Amino acid sequence: MSDIKILLDENEIPTHWYNIQADMPNAVKPPLNPKTGQPAGPEDLSVIFPMELLKQEMSVERWIEIPEEVRELYRLWRPSPLYRAQRLEKALDTPAKIYYKYEGASPAGSHKLNTAIPQAYYNKKAGIKRLATETGAGQWGSALAMACNFFGMECTVYMVKVSYQQKPYRRSMMQLFGASVIPSPSDKTQAGRDVLAKNPNSMGSLGVAISEAVEDAINHGDTNYALGSVLNHVVLHQTVIGLEAKKQMEKAGYYPDVIIACSGGGSNFGGIAMPFVYDKIKEGKNTRIMAVEPTACPSLTKGRFAYDYGDVAKLTPMMMMYTVGHDFMPPGIHAGGLRYHGASPLESQLMHDGLIEAKAYDQREVFDAAKLFAQNEGIIPAPESSHAIKAAIDEALAAREAGKSRTILFNLSGHGYFDMGAYDAYLSGRLQDSSLSEDELVRALEALPEV
Amino acid sequence: MSDIKILLDENEIPTHWYNIQADMPNAVKPPLNPKTGQPAGPEDLSVIFPMELLKQEMSVERWIEIPEEVRELYRLWRPSPLYRAQRLEKALDTPAKIYYKYEGASPAGSHKLNTAIPQAYYNKKAGIKRLATETGAGQWGSALAMACNFFGMECTVYMVKVSYQQKPYRRSMMQLFGASVIPSPSDKTQAGRDVLAKNPNSMGSLGVAISEAVEDAINHGDTNYALGSVLNHVVLHQTVIGLEAKKQMEKAGYYPDVIIACSGGGSNFGGIAMPFVYDKIKEGKNTRIMAVEPTACPSLTKGRFAYDYGDVAKLTPMMMMYTVGHDFMPPGIHAGGLRYHGASPLESQLMHDGLIEAKAYDQREVFDAAKLFAQNEGIIPAPESSHAIKAAIDEALAAREAGKSRTILFNLSGHGYFDMGAYDAYLSGRLQDSSLSEDELVRALEALPEV
Repeated sequence: MSDIKILLDENEIPTHWYNIQADMPNAVKPPLNPKTGQPAGPEDLSVIFPMELLKQEMSVERWIEIPEEVRELYRLWRPSPLYRAQRLEKALDTPAKIYYKYEGASPAGSHKLNTAIPQAYYNKKAGIKRLATETGAGQWGSALAMACNFFGMECTVYMVKVSYQQKPYRRSMMQLFGASVIPSPSDKTQAGRDVLAKNPNSMGSLGVAISEAVEDAINHGDTNYALGSVLNHVVLHQTVIGLEAKKQMEKAGYYPDVIIACSGGGSNFGGIAMPFVYDKIKEGKNTRIMAVEPTACPSLTKGRFAYDYGDVAKLTPMMMMYTVGHDFMPPGIHAGGLRYHGASPLESQLMHDGLIEAKAYDQREVFDAAKLFAQNEGIIPAPESSHAIKAAIDEALAAREAGKSRTILFNLSGHGYFDMGAYDAYLSGRLQDSSLSEDELVRALEALPEV
Repeated sequence: MSDIKILLDENEIPTHWYNIQADMPNAVKPPLNPKTGQPAGPEDLSVIFPMELLKQEMSVERWIEIPEEVRELYRLWRPSPLYRAQRLEKALDTPAKIYYKYEGASPAGSHKLNTAIPQAYYNKKAGIKRLATETGAGQWGSALAMACNFFGMECTVYMVKVSYQQKPYRRSMMQLFGASVIPSPSDKTQAGRDVLAKNPNSMGSLGVAISEAVEDAINHGDTNYALGSVLNHVVLHQTVIGLEAKKQMEKAGYYPDVIIACSGGGSNFGGIAMPFVYDKIKEGKNTRIMAVEPTACPSLTKGRFAYDYGDVAKLTPMMMMYTVGHDFMPPGIHAGGLRYHGASPLESQLMHDGLIEAKAYDQREVFDAAKLFAQNEGIIPAPESSHAIKAAIDEALAAREAGKSRTILFNLSGHGYFDMGAYDAYLSGRLQDSSLSEDELVRALEALPEV
């Protein structure tokens, strides 16, 4: 019997992150200052980010060394396992080989810890005492809370109020790691107070929570802000996923024909994809690399490649990215991590240049795939990651139709143990599809800034 | 830096379970028919268990081969990792080395899947179409639901009504794997109807749920009953934990001075302990082997070594074990898996013979230990497993006091991602201690049968 778990030793944890900016045929466009519309430099951002992260954000060096202190903490769960989904293959009666990298093995439950740890580390090194951030579904907030705890830093998480109330388990998890969790909108910030003045019953939004966290960081000298996706340095940190996966696929003896990951802001996608994009650019591999998003928030499949703000309140720099518009409020699908309006600039540029592709699915078919996966492989996937599973299953079925073997690799970015409420809605038939209509899309895109 | 994860290859999954019955200085006393008081043979039990499991229950062969179909499924997550808790060691400033075997890496979230899979397998092989069982906290029900799903069998879980209502996530998990989950007491069985007739609002108990599941199995020819702890064959299946751990400790280069596991019915304890008890009996090792229980249900530390029923309704055979009495209703502590009134006969006999020891803790100090562990190691432990953590920490502190190195091995039997409500109670100061008073103990022991 062939191995279904491909494990690496601790000394095979990558020593460097891979920076795709060194190798892109067309560089990402620079971020623009939201007020002046001029390219934003480190000086615009240093009030909320430490210089080391800003250097990484702009760097075109191919390899960036992972500090020993970060690798030391990566060892708690990395290298993460690569599995072959043999039982799923049998269930699908496909000649395809399906491999998946399992990031849910992280103690925070997802890939988010890969970047939370270095972000906490560099901030600590810069003398910062506290990090402020926002969280919607709670994956990012949990990871940052854990990372701050490891480095003895304080952590303040502005949690979208509706999630704060509906996901008490996520909140408890952050509190267990010592974080202060504040339901947003709150009265702690001007941004929060403004929203509450207009609507005391506001249940909040990610846009408002970002504004609160950024304001908190701006107003406190010992405090910085941390973001869990979208930015170049976040994607950079996530490349440990793809670097390990490449080594593991070598051990398995196959090179993937298609690589799949779900995509919200694009960090887990970039994490697994970038080292393989390198092979495509540098070694002429013709691998298909696919980002999968929900039809409810289709930035890559139906959005526009344009400069847009990163948040509702227009506090962040404008970035060149596939976007459905910064004030778009996506339907309340259960894959909360995929409800961001834009895709990371790196991913967007590669998409624009034809190096990667994208696909969108409705949430019910995604949950059908999640169920089939769980029943065969045992692991209950996060709703976000289940988008990748759906695409992987479709690829495996296409291989069966074509009568061809094919090696599929996807990233299982997180487990779904905190998402059983969503599964309950699905199993009891209460889950609705909610793809975006053309009208809604046109209206959302109207908000794009003139640059 | 030394390895903090000690992993084994798939081909190092044990090929045989270890049967302590081959090597005990004093054999376990036979179970007694609950009606006649005479030793119960396979014929008494074959109406609810398949013959292969009954053979294992009585066997004195040292090694029992693990069927290939079972090992095939074990491969989904086994061998499970052994970790060195280096960050916890540093936090405790102890010269002790703390290792833990992590069974929460199982897709069901605990060690329970180790026995659920072979139980489903042997029943399937015997032509059984459906398994009925009970669940309290939900760990066992989830594991059996998953195992039945793997073998294409039906699964009916009688879930204590209060848990059914308070733990909807566990219920959804079982349903995702195709199980029927019935709140107990139900109107599906005479036992359930009797309880409801007396008290229509009954929130149920494990004793009633067992009665319902056993009755269901007795009344349906295609249905058997499955139990997640206590019985000899269950402990047998769990020895994969200890067999792997022994190999991993060898790789680490240390033999444990003390081995610790929490103990409810005794299956995860027996699982890690038995292969080391062998060394103690056969090779004269003087390892301390410690079962840890809650003060709220202190069968090993304050109970009596006597024949007792396994359930409230006196449907199961009487077993010779440490018990606080079969109709004892322990306080509602969060470690639901440790609320069983008796310890497994195997564990009890070893305790009686001085080969193992026991210790009890209050739940608040257990949660203090869980928090310290999580903040250092990242993993959030189940409340049950946290009892073992508390004891391991105390051993490490004792080593510091004594100024001596010492190697501690404990079993982390499951993760706590479904127990965040308990952590929330702890963090918000709502958690009560609830050790058993002497009066309650005396009253509970009065119910022991005269044999």
